[in-house]
Amino acid sequence: MQHNSSKNILVLGAGLSSSSLIRYLLEQSSEHNWKIKVVDRDIALVQQKLKGHENGEALEFNAILSEERKPEIDKADLVISMLPARFHYEVALDCIELKTNLITPSYISAEMRSLDQKAKDAGIVIMNEIGVDPGLDHMSAMKIIHGVQNKGGEVTSFKSFCGGLVAPESDNNPWNYKFTWNPRNVVLAGQGGAASFIQNGEYKYIPYNRLFGRLHTMSVEGFGDFVGYANRDSLSYRATYGLDDIPTIFRGTLRRPGYCEAWNVFIELGMTDDSYEMNIHKSITPRSFLNAFLPYHPTKTVEEKFKEFLREDRIHLYDRFEWLGIFKDEPLIEFERPTPAQALQQILVHKLSLSDGDKDMLVMIHEFEYTLNGSKYQITSHMVNIGEDQVYTSMSNTVGLPAGICAKMILTGKLQTTGVTLPVQPEVYNPILEELESFDIRFIESEVKA
Amino acid sequence: MQHNSSKNILVLGAGLSSSSLIRYLLEQSSEHNWKIKVVDRDIALVQQKLKGHENGEALEFNAILSEERKPEIDKADLVISMLPARFHYEVALDCIELKTNLITPSYISAEMRSLDQKAKDAGIVIMNEIGVDPGLDHMSAMKIIHGVQNKGGEVTSFKSFCGGLVAPESDNNPWNYKFTWNPRNVVLAGQGGAASFIQNGEYKYIPYNRLFGRLHTMSVEGFGDFVGYANRDSLSYRATYGLDDIPTIFRGTLRRPGYCEAWNVFIELGMTDDSYEMNIHKSITPRSFLNAFLPYHPTKTVEEKFKEFLREDRIHLYDRFEWLGIFKDEPLIEFERPTPAQALQQILVHKLSLSDGDKDMLVMIHEFEYTLNGSKYQITSHMVNIGEDQVYTSMSNTVGLPAGICAKMILTGKLQTTGVTLPVQPEVYNPILEELESFDIRFIESEVKA
Repeated sequence: MQHNSSKNILVLGAGLSSSSLIRYLLEQSSEHNWKIKVVDRDIALVQQKLKGHENGEALEFNAILSEERKPEIDKADLVISMLPARFHYEVALDCIELKTNLITPSYISAEMRSLDQKAKDAGIVIMNEIGVDPGLDHMSAMKIIHGVQNKGGEVTSFKSFCGGLVAPESDNNPWNYKFTWNPRNVVLAGQGGAASFIQNGEYKYIPYNRLFGRLHTMSVEGFGDFVGYANRDSLSYRATYGLDDIPTIFRGTLRRPGYCEAWNVFIELGMTDDSYEMNIHKSITPRSFLNAFLPYHPTKTVEEKFKEFLREDRIHLYDRFEWLGIFKDEPLIEFERPTPAQALQQILVHKLSLSDGDKDMLVMIHEFEYTLNGSKYQITSHMVNIGEDQVYTSMSNTVGLPAGICAKMILTGKLQTTGVTLPVQPEVYNPILEELESFDIRFIESEVKA
Repeated sequence: MQHNSSKNILVLGAGLSSSSLIRYLLEQSSEHNWKIKVVDRDIALVQQKLKGHENGEALEFNAILSEERKPEIDKADLVISMLPARFHYEVALDCIELKTNLITPSYISAEMRSLDQKAKDAGIVIMNEIGVDPGLDHMSAMKIIHGVQNKGGEVTSFKSFCGGLVAPESDNNPWNYKFTWNPRNVVLAGQGGAASFIQNGEYKYIPYNRLFGRLHTMSVEGFGDFVGYANRDSLSYRATYGLDDIPTIFRGTLRRPGYCEAWNVFIELGMTDDSYEMNIHKSITPRSFLNAFLPYHPTKTVEEKFKEFLREDRIHLYDRFEWLGIFKDEPLIEFERPTPAQALQQILVHKLSLSDGDKDMLVMIHEFEYTLNGSKYQITSHMVNIGEDQVYTSMSNTVGLPAGICAKMILTGKLQTTGVTLPVQPEVYNPILEELESFDIRFIESEVKA
């Protein structure tokens, strides 16, 4: 461990999710003798995040261009790519060529996985999925799974939920939700195929139109009730976690109660469709947008038609929609020919965006069942983290800090593995989970005999 | 008109839909001195349909290969392509090169449309969409539209429905439906985007999950009640029919009452999805297939869970599903890993196929509204045709006879137009509609002042 030899870290991208990562690296930089170079096409953004720190350097170029970034990768000891996920593979090729370690918080792609031997030959580590989801989910789950296995137990059920929500102190609307991340991803969530999982050995499939109607409910002490809807892919986590024969595995996204039931109304109406442009020649209003999905009637109002659509059993949801302003006949959107999803997003961001002073909240909940010596046990583990403000959000902290701690482990020689990998081994997740507790990112576990 | 000079007709494809076409051409061949060559990869199929007729000749080659078909196109005066629609463009290129007229019953593609000038330069006609739907719908509608316009009226609303159903005398199941055409198309019907139409000047969109829940109901004297669900594309017919500013245009597919409500249950369950393969390692049964779309429950039966899914307001549909055998736990399907749509199709064809002696029925219904001298009028026009047997089905007759009559018009010089076209002009549709009446394919019109 050569703390005194200077090391260079290159961070690609200074967007929302990089804030906490950059702050952590700068805070650690003097002790470890690091230089932190951060590149973005928008240098003002970089300067904002570096805050004139003596160990920081702002670079302005387009990091998705190989010829621009390669000279800087060559000078770096470690690259952290916060670029959109589709660019990580190209960055990895450069890192292999230049023998520079790489960290990304994004899902590992099949392409990326195929570079494993090349990364090993180059003597570098390419660490992926080391943010919050994916990232913290793997680390906190594997710690429990390994714990059960080490004492001879067998994990028979694993349900895991994560959600980016609004903090209780800022939760002041009837949807109990605000956008804490890209609103487009929220509007399109769950599209693109049925959600699949396995429960007690039975494969289950939920089509998009039912996704927000089949919910798990759970509570976290001090934080109230949550519901979870199924993520599209639960089955691939069997291989990731080495649980190939587990009878039950389920992954879901957390919302507050009532949100999903109401969201399903948008889906049933057809408002989340992003596949076609609507024929709206005049200025679109929320009311005309809604009316396009309701039957024509010569005398009934849009409100009356919407109530009929809701049916008696969902009429209690009416107020949520009225609060959103969907019956208003005021021009809303600049779009010439929006897709339904684009128009819906415009309506939602008017009402569901974070206000000044609002804080976000990241919630993760694991539910395990295992057998040991013929007895059944249940473990629950949860983590609730509240953001500091609208820059150092919980999302930014939970994505950036695991990546930052992993960077420190690599540069100080505490992590010596090579190849394309994930944070599923004790030598990776234990030190990271431990240090995260000093940032108030902690998992609370409880176990009962069933 | 040179009735005595021999003409050669080349028919590409001898499948289901070619039967009535070939019979018609053979019947007319002696009077007009025609030779009918029919090509298919399966020569036995051709021989079955030619029945040894002296003016017929069976050819055996793969008509989708240009080098195989070109020598025969060169010898022909007219080609009728009954190949799958995607091959028509390539056939058209050969026909232009060899200056041979072409008829296809399929939807005109943008590619095909682009050949208009080339076809005119070659002095040939390429007649498309001259079957039943598309085909008879255009002809019967344009006759009425032109009639209204010729007396100075303006068409303000046009709703048009078509359906291939089972004849009343063969209608003996609770779905009041049997497959009279490709079952796969029936299972996938309505997928691929929202249905769009315009009603009283308002654009309306119906997503797939609501498509079979928003229905038009109508009756045909002597044939009972029908319902219509929206086709995906109604709007493009404004250009086809020269009704660009019409406030209401709607196209739909006909079923018997109750069918759509029940079909919507399959859609809500997710059983019509063709986009993924199910993880079913053991032999699949209808029961296990259904259970994959219902929530896991430790004690409730599949029947109980399905009843809960139906909800109280749809519980009357239960018997239809039981009749289909979806609760049976007997191995049903050979598939290793079927898509949901493939598995559902297997279940349905067991119960909803035509039996020996069953007849099919083609129903078309148009509803027009128009204004003339300040007054409003309504015209309805309907055609119901029953098939002869399982070879000369109503589907085969209504597809093949319009194409056959058009062939006669081209070869006898009664149709002199050139270029890429549709049957929307009086000189095309009037003689065809008139001759079709001799085959009991007739539209019954009625008009009332509104």
